[in-house]
Parts: sequence; C-alpha cells; structure tokens
Amino acid sequence: MPVKLFPPKAESLMPISGVDLGHAEAHIRQAGRKDLLVMTLAEGSHVVGVFTENRFCAAPVTVCKKHLRAKQGIRALLINTGCANAGSGESGMRRAVQSCEALAKLLSLAPTQILPFSTGVILEPLPIDKLIAGLPTAISNLQPKNWLNAAQSIMTTDVVPKGTSRQVEIDGQLIAITGISKGSGMIHPNMATMLAYIATDAKVSESALKKIINYAVKQSFNSITVDGDTSTNDSFMMIATNQAENNEIIESSPAFDTLRDALTEVAVELAQAIVRDGEGATKFITVLVDGGHTEVECRKVAYAIARSPLVKTAFFASDPNLGRILSAIGNADVSNLDVNKVGLYLGDVLVAEKGCISSMYKEEQVLAIMQAPEIQMRIVLNRGEASATIWTCDLSYDYVKINADYRT
Amino acid sequence: MPVKLFPPKAESLMPISGVDLGHAEAHIRQAGRKDLLVMTLAEGSHVVGVFTENRFCAAPVTVCKKHLRAKQGIRALLINTGCANAGSGESGMRRAVQSCEALAKLLSLAPTQILPFSTGVILEPLPIDKLIAGLPTAISNLQPKNWLNAAQSIMTTDVVPKGTSRQVEIDGQLIAITGISKGSGMIHPNMATMLAYIATDAKVSESALKKIINYAVKQSFNSITVDGDTSTNDSFMMIATNQAENNEIIESSPAFDTLRDALTEVAVELAQAIVRDGEGATKFITVLVDGGHTEVECRKVAYAIARSPLVKTAFFASDPNLGRILSAIGNADVSNLDVNKVGLYLGDVLVAEKGCISSMYKEEQVLAIMQAPEIQMRIVLNRGEASATIWTCDLSYDYVKINADYRT
Repeated sequence: MPVKLFPPKAESLMPISGVDLGHAEAHIRQAGRKDLLVMTLAEGSHVVGVFTENRFCAAPVTVCKKHLRAKQGIRALLINTGCANAGSGESGMRRAVQSCEALAKLLSLAPTQILPFSTGVILEPLPIDKLIAGLPTAISNLQPKNWLNAAQSIMTTDVVPKGTSRQVEIDGQLIAITGISKGSGMIHPNMATMLAYIATDAKVSESALKKIINYAVKQSFNSITVDGDTSTNDSFMMIATNQAENNEIIESSPAFDTLRDALTEVAVELAQAIVRDGEGATKFITVLVDGGHTEVECRKVAYAIARSPLVKTAFFASDPNLGRILSAIGNADVSNLDVNKVGLYLGDVLVAEKGCISSMYKEEQVLAIMQAPEIQMRIVLNRGEASATIWTCDLSYDYVKINADYRT
Repeated sequence: MPVKLFPPKAESLMPISGVDLGHAEAHIRQAGRKDLLVMTLAEGSHVVGVFTENRFCAAPVTVCKKHLRAKQGIRALLINTGCANAGSGESGMRRAVQSCEALAKLLSLAPTQILPFSTGVILEPLPIDKLIAGLPTAISNLQPKNWLNAAQSIMTTDVVPKGTSRQVEIDGQLIAITGISKGSGMIHPNMATMLAYIATDAKVSESALKKIINYAVKQSFNSITVDGDTSTNDSFMMIATNQAENNEIIESSPAFDTLRDALTEVAVELAQAIVRDGEGATKFITVLVDGGHTEVECRKVAYAIARSPLVKTAFFASDPNLGRILSAIGNADVSNLDVNKVGLYLGDVLVAEKGCISSMYKEEQVLAIMQAPEIQMRIVLNRGEASATIWTCDLSYDYVKINADYRT
C-alpha cells in the first residue's frame, strides 16, 4: 500500500483554461482500463520538457524532441500506457509518428504539433491499430474537468492516481496550476519510468518556462529513487496556456520566483507521490545530507544510501542495522571524505558521530522511528556548507513480487 | 539454496606445507558455531593482500595495512565472524590491536606479525574478551588438514562453506594451492563483504606474488556482484609459504604464468562460489559483454545489467522481460553508445539486434533458458574488440527476507 498517499478528489484538481483532457479504453495491453489520454492545448501555449537520459530512449521520446524542435506550436499531447514502444527500432519510430498523424488528422493539426508519450512493457511492438481506434472516444471525452481521469489513464503499476493543484496570485490575477504524474518502479533520477505533466494558465515566456522546468526537475523528479533504474521513456512536461490576464512573466519579472516556486511545489509533490507509491513501498524515507563541500557530493552520499538494497531492506524490517548506512556512505564516490567527521541522525537521535556509534545512543531510541511510515535521516559531513535532499522508499517482498510478475 | 554449489569434502582441500589452521567457538555473536580462526604461517612466508575501497574501512583492515607495511614477516592470521568491528572508531582500533597482541603473546611473535580480519554486523563493539578467551582453543586445534573447518569458521550468512584446491607442476615439483572464501551479501566488486585466503607452498618472490594477486583479483572478486554494495571489511589475501623445492619464481620466470593462472583459477572458483551462494540466489548469471572499445566500458555495461533490480527480479521469475536488459544497457555510463548496433543473446538465442527485438525471436525459445539455474547472457556492442565478463545472481524474496532479518 502506498505510504500516506491518497487519490486526489476529482474536484480538487483545478481545470486549467486552455487545457482539455479526454481518455479512452483502447485495450492496448488489457481490456477494462483507461490506457489512452489526449490533452489538447489552446493556441499560443508554451510547452517545454525534460526527457530520459537513458541511451535506449524510446521512440516517442525521440519524436517528442523532434516535434518540439519543429516549433510549429504544440497543440496536443497523446499518451498511452501498456506498451512503452521502446527497443522497437525503425518500426517503433514509424508507429510513434503514425499515432501523431492519426490524431493530427482528427484535430485538424499538423503531426509536428502533437507530442507522443508511451509507458509500459519494453521490447514489444506498439499496437498502433488499437491506439488509433481509441482516439475518437478520447476526443469525444475532451473537457477541462477531466484531470482525475487523465491521472488514471497514465497509470501502470501505480496503485494510486497522482495529481495536485495550486493557486497563486500574480498581478491580482488568480493563476491556476494542475499536475499529474505516474510511476512507481524503474525510478531513479535523471528521470525514471515516470511521466509528469504540469499545466498552468499563467502568461509566461517560453524561455522563462524553460528556466523554471530546469529548476523544478532538479528539486523534484531528479531527487527521487525507488530502485536505481532509469527508464527509456521518462518525460516531464510543463505547459503554460497563457490564458490568464497577468503581465507576461519573463526571467526578470518580480513574479518569476512566485510562479517558479509554485510550479516547483507541484513538481515536488508529484515526485514524492511516485516514491510513496513506489513498488512495494512501506516507508517513505527522506535522506538529508549536509555539511558537504558541494551539492554534488551531498547528492552522491544521499544516493549511495538511498540506492543500497541493504539499507532499504533494513528499513523494511524496521531493523536499526545502522552500520549499513555508514557502509553506504563509505561507498559514495566522494574524494578525501574523512569518515571520522561523519555524523548520522535518525529522526532527532544522534546515532553515530566521529565515524562511530555515539556514546549516548541506545537502540531503543530509534525503534519507534524505524517503525513509522515516514522516516527522516540526516548525515552531517562536517566539511562545508552544501546540502542535498533525496527521497526514497524501502525494499520489500512486494517489490520483488511486483517485478517478478509484471508482465503477467 | 545455493546455485549448483556443494560443500567441499575435507579431503579435497589439500594441506599447504607451512600453513596450520585452528578454529574455536568463541561465542562472539552466538553460541554453538565456529567463529574464530587462527592461521599460522612458516617463517619466510610471503603475504600480500587487496582490501576494500569503502571509505568506512573497518579497524582490522587499517591494522592489516599497517602490519603489512611494518615488514616484520607475517606469521599468523586471526579471523573472527559475528562482528565486523567497523564504524567502531578509536575503541575499535584498540580492540583490533589488542587481539593481535593477545595472539602474538601466545605464539611468541610480535603483534605486527599478525593480521586481523573481522566480518559480521557493523557498528557494534567487538567482544574482545570473548575473542581472546577463544584463542587457546584455536591454537590447540592448529593442524595442516583443517581447511574445511577453517572455511566453516569464517561464514556469516553463507549457506555453504567455500574452498577449493589445485595442483600444478613447476620444475618437476608438485605445487599445491588451497583457498577458502566467505561472503554472500553486500557483494560488489572492488571487494564486497567477502574474505578470501589462498595459500600455496610455491617458492615465489613477494613482488611476483603481488603482481599475481592484482591480476587475479580483477578476474575474480572484482568481477562479481550480488547486490551492488561494497563492504567495510573485504580482504583477499594470497600466501606463499615458499616450502616447495621449485626455483624461486620471479616476474620473468617461465613458470610465472603457470603459477599465476593456477592461483587465478582458484580465485575465480572462490569468487563464483560467493555468487552461487548469493543471499537468496536461485540463478547464477554470466554477463558477457564484447565488441566494446575498451574493457572498462564493457564492465560498465555488464555491471549496469548485473546491478539492476528489475533485471534481477525478472530472472528470478524466469520472465523473459528482456527489454529491461536493454534499458539497463542504456543506463550504463558509456559515451556515444549507438544503441542501434547493440545485440543481445540469451544462451544461443539472438533476442535483440540493431537496438530492437530480432525478427527471428520467439519468446518460447528463451523460456527454458530463463528457467535453468545457470544462465549465459551476451551483449554485443559492435564497436570494438574489448570484452568483459561479470557474474551475478537473481534477486528473490529470500534476499529481502535474509537482509530484513539479518541481526535477529
């Protein structure tokens, strides 16, 4: 069961002026589930994205990048689950393009105005006929209030649909932000098997929006890990429909920070939701590393801990086998780390200092902390001012079960 | 259950002239199991070692390095299980030295002639009194034919004791080699929670022995992974007692390669035994990557596969979800990798070529291969002549169970 994560209520996900959403059951992998989403955008919308760094990037990712470069004005997003269209070679590329062509025809757009996304099993051919056959239903469903259905339509092994909204006031105008995400395994930074879409009606320049997405992705989707695997299909898109009446926000606008922070907050919540719904997760773990020379080294230490199967199984068992955390720190690729200066806190309890167990520490102190569904860990490197925070989950029997049975 | 790994018979482990072994039950962590080993070496023996690269290296590792530098002639090794004496700070260092002092006194040696080794739980104090109290029993047991007891005395979560012997003829003399190892979790190259000791009676210079261990470690213990975690205590020692009647082997001797290859063969068998006994392992998986520019990039690709929890759970389930292998390849840090040239074989079956599924491939072909306890995987990068081989195991429910319950 997800860790303190509940499905959003349909009415809590605010419509974004200029965005309509329509879904369908296209039977791409199995019958009886929503697996196709069409998102149409008002003319003049800006769309920016960050994509997987996996060298086997999937066909739709390649097509997305190409269509964004074409600068025809993106007017629709097309998302399917059930099949990732990855490791699918030339024929996969053809099918991704075909899907855009089919939707473009139905919407009277150019194919380069469509961005395609896929998630699901790798190395299987995309059932393009089923996908195309599902498009008319999705289009007939198009409406602004459809965000919860949209969140449900992009799920794979997700237990809970993920979505959230915010409002901020800019120039006396209420600006709305709504985002959805999916993903619960193959999750590691630099994008994981995750899709996320955040839309706002704010009026904002494309270059300012690019700056915001680069800031937000680092704080959110690139600060999580479930199993250390980065997927072939990860995509995080930020959409501004420019329908609100605020003055256009550019990098130097006073309102830039307001919009950036609100969009980042949504991205962080959606990213954390992916960890909370991590495959088999029973604990949500925050790893804060501070006192480092650089943020980069703090992230290395945090990830060495967050990726360690030994640390993750110990948290699953609520077993304060905390030496495993020190060992993981020692494996991080940080030069000249003086382990005799390293401190470790679990919750508020000082567990280790100067590289060894604290003389004050008693195991009873951390038993309750280990059993809680949310755990805070802090590592103090005592060699500088930099810090970094990473979110992860434990490794349970159910992770193995889910991934052993995924295709069946 | 270990994958095709059986305990060696006592009589199959050849005595090495100049090496005596004695064990004891010192109750270091629990009663009723052998947990203390003393290995004495004839005067004039050469001892060389390779140690963990974990920055939190354990106290005994630090003491070993110091005693090797002292060049007093190593005459005994002292090994305990149950407690790793890691993350134990100043007091841990004191206890490691104390253990050497106690054994030195009993054997009329200098403390710097002793090398200490520990394996077990991290971040707990070494019960030095129990360890010292066990020494007289271990010494009273000293004898050359004690290798199987020795292998049993260094086990932690190992299911099977690990040991093997070889004989080679050099200068008309039969040279004997016997080695033992332990380890089944926290296993990753650059040494894992593993201890290994290989002894030979060959006459060989110390510098030639150093060259041999550096060669052997790369082919063996640095070519395996169970869970990607490197431990604080890993040590691989090679001992030459110089008791045989061969001419002393130096780097330029014709017999150098013969001895190197025989010692390496033993190291590879002991390293593979650790993977076969990997925590919860049900499959032994060989990952061969060839056609690379460099061996380094082949190793990166092989480890990206061997470390991926998604790949490992798919193998556990005998589920040919082979796209996960392509995705893992795409995550390897190899620059300019053209995924459209990559080929993937499982056993003899060509699964993917040119970056996508082979037109010849049918899933039925690999089902039997996936179900076998030994699986060969070959990745062809098609960009050069280099290759590398890594051994790993699958990730099962029992890995989680073993590591969730380790301390209880």
